[in-house]
Amino acid sequence: MLKLRSRFVYHSQMTKGILSYQDVRQQTVALCASLKTEDFCAQSMPDVSPTKWHLAHTTWFFETFILSKAMARYRSYNDCFKYLFNSYYNGIGEQFPRESRGLLSRPTVEEVLDYRKKIDQQMVALLRNKKQKEKWNYFVQLGLHHEQQHQELIITDIKHVFSLNPLQPVYKKKAPKRNVSVGKMNWVRFNEEETLLGHEGVGFHFDNEGPLHRATLIPFQIANRLVTNGEYLKFIEAGGYKKSQYWLSKGWEVVQREKWNAPLYWKKEGKEWFVMTLTGIKKVNTSEPVCHVSYYEADAFASWMNARLPSEAEWERASQEVSLKGNFVQKKSFHPQPVEKKNQQVLDQLFGDVWEWTRSPYVPYPGYVASKTAVGEYNGKFMCNQMVLRGGSCATSQDHIRSTYRNFFYPEDRWQFSGIRLAKDL
Amino acid sequence: MLKLRSRFVYHSQMTKGILSYQDVRQQTVALCASLKTEDFCAQSMPDVSPTKWHLAHTTWFFETFILSKAMARYRSYNDCFKYLFNSYYNGIGEQFPRESRGLLSRPTVEEVLDYRKKIDQQMVALLRNKKQKEKWNYFVQLGLHHEQQHQELIITDIKHVFSLNPLQPVYKKKAPKRNVSVGKMNWVRFNEEETLLGHEGVGFHFDNEGPLHRATLIPFQIANRLVTNGEYLKFIEAGGYKKSQYWLSKGWEVVQREKWNAPLYWKKEGKEWFVMTLTGIKKVNTSEPVCHVSYYEADAFASWMNARLPSEAEWERASQEVSLKGNFVQKKSFHPQPVEKKNQQVLDQLFGDVWEWTRSPYVPYPGYVASKTAVGEYNGKFMCNQMVLRGGSCATSQDHIRSTYRNFFYPEDRWQFSGIRLAKDL
Amino acid sequence: MLKLRSRFVYHSQMTKGILSYQDVRQQTVALCASLKTEDFCAQSMPDVSPTKWHLAHTTWFFETFILSKAMARYRSYNDCFKYLFNSYYNGIGEQFPRESRGLLSRPTVEEVLDYRKKIDQQMVALLRNKKQKEKWNYFVQLGLHHEQQHQELIITDIKHVFSLNPLQPVYKKKAPKRNVSVGKMNWVRFNEEETLLGHEGVGFHFDNEGPLHRATLIPFQIANRLVTNGEYLKFIEAGGYKKSQYWLSKGWEVVQREKWNAPLYWKKEGKEWFVMTLTGIKKVNTSEPVCHVSYYEADAFASWMNARLPSEAEWERASQEVSLKGNFVQKKSFHPQPVEKKNQQVLDQLFGDVWEWTRSPYVPYPGYVASKTAVGEYNGKFMCNQMVLRGGSCATSQDHIRSTYRNFFYPEDRWQFSGIRLAKDL
Amino acid sequence: MLKLRSRFVYHSQMTKGILSYQDVRQQTVALCASLKTEDFCAQSMPDVSPTKWHLAHTTWFFETFILSKAMARYRSYNDCFKYLFNSYYNGIGEQFPRESRGLLSRPTVEEVLDYRKKIDQQMVALLRNKKQKEKWNYFVQLGLHHEQQHQELIITDIKHVFSLNPLQPVYKKKAPKRNVSVGKMNWVRFNEEETLLGHEGVGFHFDNEGPLHRATLIPFQIANRLVTNGEYLKFIEAGGYKKSQYWLSKGWEVVQREKWNAPLYWKKEGKEWFVMTLTGIKKVNTSEPVCHVSYYEADAFASWMNARLPSEAEWERASQEVSLKGNFVQKKSFHPQPVEKKNQQVLDQLFGDVWEWTRSPYVPYPGYVASKTAVGEYNGKFMCNQMVLRGGSCATSQDHIRSTYRNFFYPEDRWQFSGIRLAKDL
Repeated sequence: MLKLRSRFVYHSQMTKGILSYQDVRQQTVALCASLKTEDFCAQSMPDVSPTKWHLAHTTWFFETFILSKAMARYRSYNDCFKYLFNSYYNGIGEQFPRESRGLLSRPTVEEVLDYRKKIDQQMVALLRNKKQKEKWNYFVQLGLHHEQQHQELIITDIKHVFSLNPLQPVYKKKAPKRNVSVGKMNWVRFNEEETLLGHEGVGFHFDNEGPLHRATLIPFQIANRLVTNGEYLKFIEAGGYKKSQYWLSKGWEVVQREKWNAPLYWKKEGKEWFVMTLTGIKKVNTSEPVCHVSYYEADAFASWMNARLPSEAEWERASQEVSLKGNFVQKKSFHPQPVEKKNQQVLDQLFGDVWEWTRSPYVPYPGYVASKTAVGEYNGKFMCNQMVLRGGSCATSQDHIRSTYRNFFYPEDRWQFSGIRLAKDL
Repeated sequence: MLKLRSRFVYHSQMTKGILSYQDVRQQTVALCASLKTEDFCAQSMPDVSPTKWHLAHTTWFFETFILSKAMARYRSYNDCFKYLFNSYYNGIGEQFPRESRGLLSRPTVEEVLDYRKKIDQQMVALLRNKKQKEKWNYFVQLGLHHEQQHQELIITDIKHVFSLNPLQPVYKKKAPKRNVSVGKMNWVRFNEEETLLGHEGVGFHFDNEGPLHRATLIPFQIANRLVTNGEYLKFIEAGGYKKSQYWLSKGWEVVQREKWNAPLYWKKEGKEWFVMTLTGIKKVNTSEPVCHVSYYEADAFASWMNARLPSEAEWERASQEVSLKGNFVQKKSFHPQPVEKKNQQVLDQLFGDVWEWTRSPYVPYPGYVASKTAVGEYNGKFMCNQMVLRGGSCATSQDHIRSTYRNFFYPEDRWQFSGIRLAKDL
Repeated sequence: MLKLRSRFVYHSQMTKGILSYQDVRQQTVALCASLKTEDFCAQSMPDVSPTKWHLAHTTWFFETFILSKAMARYRSYNDCFKYLFNSYYNGIGEQFPRESRGLLSRPTVEEVLDYRKKIDQQMVALLRNKKQKEKWNYFVQLGLHHEQQHQELIITDIKHVFSLNPLQPVYKKKAPKRNVSVGKMNWVRFNEEETLLGHEGVGFHFDNEGPLHRATLIPFQIANRLVTNGEYLKFIEAGGYKKSQYWLSKGWEVVQREKWNAPLYWKKEGKEWFVMTLTGIKKVNTSEPVCHVSYYEADAFASWMNARLPSEAEWERASQEVSLKGNFVQKKSFHPQPVEKKNQQVLDQLFGDVWEWTRSPYVPYPGYVASKTAVGEYNGKFMCNQMVLRGGSCATSQDHIRSTYRNFFYPEDRWQFSGIRLAKDL
Repeated sequence: MLKLRSRFVYHSQMTKGILSYQDVRQQTVALCASLKTEDFCAQSMPDVSPTKWHLAHTTWFFETFILSKAMARYRSYNDCFKYLFNSYYNGIGEQFPRESRGLLSRPTVEEVLDYRKKIDQQMVALLRNKKQKEKWNYFVQLGLHHEQQHQELIITDIKHVFSLNPLQPVYKKKAPKRNVSVGKMNWVRFNEEETLLGHEGVGFHFDNEGPLHRATLIPFQIANRLVTNGEYLKFIEAGGYKKSQYWLSKGWEVVQREKWNAPLYWKKEGKEWFVMTLTGIKKVNTSEPVCHVSYYEADAFASWMNARLPSEAEWERASQEVSLKGNFVQKKSFHPQPVEKKNQQVLDQLFGDVWEWTRSPYVPYPGYVASKTAVGEYNGKFMCNQMVLRGGSCATSQDHIRSTYRNFFYPEDRWQFSGIRLAKDL
């Protein structure tokens, strides 16, 4: 019924590639290579989960939604895990309280790794059977994309854990320093048009990316690159955190209550701003994209700039102009920090580096119906009070992201790699 | 640029009528006729303000935004009132903490009424001057519509205050009992179409109602009437409050934490449900529209019904089919409770009775820019985490409401006269 | 068995005087003469009760513990009052939540005064019957002393209510200014001795004042007068609130959490300290006794002075040297603030002005057994985590206090008229 | 001046034995033998510290109060540890927030054990120097007794951590089951007398145990043995947790708020009560002493029994009749649970098994002056709002306890091995 324009098909073709079970599973463990046993256990705030929990929960997903259903007389690895590693699937049963995950010293890391091994053996056996593989393909792919999301959380969560430790642990050795100058922000213009929004249905995607639907865009312009630390610093120095007029009402409340005066992980020593990264504490680099800001801060900054954040429709329309590449997690080596980049004059940095806050609340697309199965709890029930972010970050895997991908967090959340791209009415 | 369809103009013409300063101001005081001095002072939760505070704050609005600017060398009634009765206008200055309004025994009710009198005298004098009247017309009308909003809050807030009192105070004598049968719910169908949403600009309206803009509707159907207590009771009896699958994640959290098991003001005695109203406690009338439900409850009920809430675009489109009448606050007499109504088979109860939760988050319309003045704090800064409600309630004045009117509350709020109309995809 | 020394009998004789029902009841209402209706309703913190509540609760005491028992077929004034005005007597039944007393706009002040009138009429009738009077004498006296305690609370509670109001309401016109110089603090010495502690049993007293028992005192000295504002100011200026070494661990926690930097009601403007009193805001008078300090502050001040607070045994022993007079509430006129006083060189200010914190936790005297009746809840169940204060204050009636009188508050409480007398080991 | 009676000297002689540095230090590590690396890190509530923290903090004590002072140009092991492992010594500097100790994944357990090793090497070297050993002897002994206190906390804290884990970790293999019948509780009578209370000064003791002072005892009787689970169960079954009349006011508040219905670690399954112990979950043994009750529960139980708790003077007087032995932590093997014991007819179980709540608030003895040094923060600043417990527990080392030993906890604390012995007036 809806006519798909050619530019739209572009990215969705890219994502048709099927993820490899072993690759994704091994990558999760590989991300933990530099962690000590003790690091796997800490929960620094209710939003953060211990690494150990991520390792077990992603495994629980395959055991619960595939093995226990695919295999006759399946014997669970440990009956208690059903409760301990269920995140929020009420359809599966009760859950161990989220905010208490850090209190569990058992199972040990070794036991969790054994759990992974045993489930992997059974999964690999299952997938060797062609008929079974076909039958469970959707859930396997869902589980792998789900696991990729937790790979990102492993990175963001351990960063938060390390940030509270006066001993300043480091996740990764420092990367070589770049030295590029970021030019002036430019604006890319889009006319009024009717566009198509959402995933057209071919290739893996989450159900919240559909249905594909028409949306009317008013004329707008969008910044060609991300907002930098340097630009954000000017906002701080102009008293941005002290002037209520830039802030949403709830945002201003949080600023006062939490005494926010800069992005998360920034700290002023004397006259100099420093930032804690996964490679250690360093001076704030004014050329790098600003990161770890909440929606409230992104919105206030935009306000101060006499601009606004893009809607997700605008962002998605703009993303159709560029190819899907950027600063992502690479299998072998990656830099868990957004990077500065020489100005391209054209639309850039849409993918990778930082998730970009949009002004769009996370709501169902017209015609969306949440699945009634337990797996359906994945998306629908969170469609309230959260904001959509787009484009992936330096902690995202490239084969995880799409131009239609909708991430979502609460407006006060800052511990994700979240940044800012500006937009304006034309 | 946008072509206005005829049906659209209909209501906006109705609202062109200018409110009368004296009428609105007197109506506010008239609403307090049955209150004792002590009733004016109580604050039963942070969201609720004492009646006394409403009387003073609405007066402060005229003093602050008109008199102090219009009159050379204006001497404030009481310098301290600037601080005490500022609600949330950071541009005007600091505010007395909202949650502590009930701690202020002074000014007394008598003093507040004197404050109203003195400001009214000066306002009336100002408005006698034709040039001044013209100059300040917009702010006068804004102040009057603002005051009408607080008239509704006076009613909803005193209801909450009375609800906590074991002595069961009554705001108004009981109304004569109706006895009508409400028929089966019918569905009214709308085709896919491009519609115009928002206020076209003629006649008074709040800035959040514009700009007028195009929106694409997918085919939908909307219930011809409000959900009744009887229908909601079936949800309760089916274990609606005990089954997580119907609920948004945050909603389920609130249900658990607050131990919700019915709408606000409902109480079960033995096997019978009773409800506290402004005319006293009575048995739940299964024919009346259900009222005092949160967005979470409205959404869960809809889920249980295999339906959904309408979007505000859908609601506004539907409202263009009917004329603006319903169960509103009347100058002389009114019934502060939604009423049962004989089934009309056609779209009914869209206006009055209860505010209808929509599934739309309260966000700016495309092209909306919040005013930079202090008065501009009125709307823009609240556009986050709230949901839009439409149509007015039994506590709204008829000349206050429009089909484009956007009310907004947090999804857990229940103390407003808020109810449910269902919608479905076609 | 215990030999009573002559000095001991002294005060207990004074208290044998029976309180007059009408006098005490009228005095309660007289204390409210300057209050507006609105003032009777406010509850500024959970510890504070609305004046209206005090007026009703003291009446409820007579209705519950006397009238309802003495009169056959007694009909309660209002059944709901049993619940509303029960403070903490679980034996009588459930209680309306203490922290919510300020939410009750009804009964109105007028209704409460009518309640008092009706109960008084019945009480007076009962007491006219000589036999009944004798039978109920103990409970009548208990009720009257109980009411005197609430008279003090009416004063301390309205002071707290007024203190939060930017309009700075005043309870009483200012008293004429004195101008006396307070001399150096002297120390009065007491030898090691075995003393008798507690009430010997003749004349009205609360059960927590007994049994009379032996206690061994080590040699000590006690200050001849109260600590002044001037002396306390030096503690502030010496950084007393910033140095943990003077503070009990829990006290230091409160200082940090509540950001205490001076006694309650003090406020610094520029370089000058001001204090809010019931007669208005005024400069801190360095000659007046310091007031509205917590146990933690009293203890920290003593620590800084290389002294300590007296034990209640020491205080009681010292009080036997002086006669019971001081700055108390007088029937006709009184000054609701501690006053400066020309130095007497001898023990002075032990009674009246401010309650004196002792270092003694409020525990039962050896052999004390709490009464098993509902009235027995009066004292025993509070004997945990509170500290004893002695001597009465400027808000106490003279015929209420005794040298054996044990008042008790939590160590962080500051809203009573509580001050400091120092002691030292010899 | 004070005449010491012979029975008094008895225990104080016993405690003259000097603790061995190596023995105590090794014992601490030995207690952790069954723990997994992950177990060392968890903090299950603010009162609980991770095992890792205990291991480091006790080491910090020797480094801070001895090595850093005794050695010229001492280089700290890690400058950050000064902050991380300071518990509450404000005199030493700021402290890492207590409630966040569980968030620190670093230092690792291995690093902490290395820290212990390095400090031990330096301490042992220091103590080889006879002059130094003499000079620092008091602080060494203080550090060792301090470490013994943390040995007990390691046991109580890991028990709490394990109790929250659905996997039910076990600290120690089950001990062989005894089968003894506990006879009727008997009462041992004491006449009115003047006794001496406190430590006479010879041999190691904490400063809060002195000065030795006279106290007058009224005639009393004390139970010959501890209250058993069986006796406590009768209290539960009689509705003890549902009847306010047995409870202190604050205790009743806690019961309601925390929904207490049995001692900590008890759980009812069907009609049977189970209890979690360090050797696993088992049926409640009615012959064992009741354990893990708060002061509030101990006091309420006593109330229900028409008895009371002993004062610390009474307890200490009674303890002078028996020798110091009981169920303690043994070097080689120990049973971390109070044990049932055949009734001795005489005073029994005073030492070991469970700490016995007394009715005495933890206050300074007459003449006590807290040391002004940083080490002086050890006791004085906690003398407020806590209750004294006596006699040691199954988690205490025998060479740590004395008849004059004063332990102290807040009345709501239950995670220590705390139980009940009854007393009565004669």
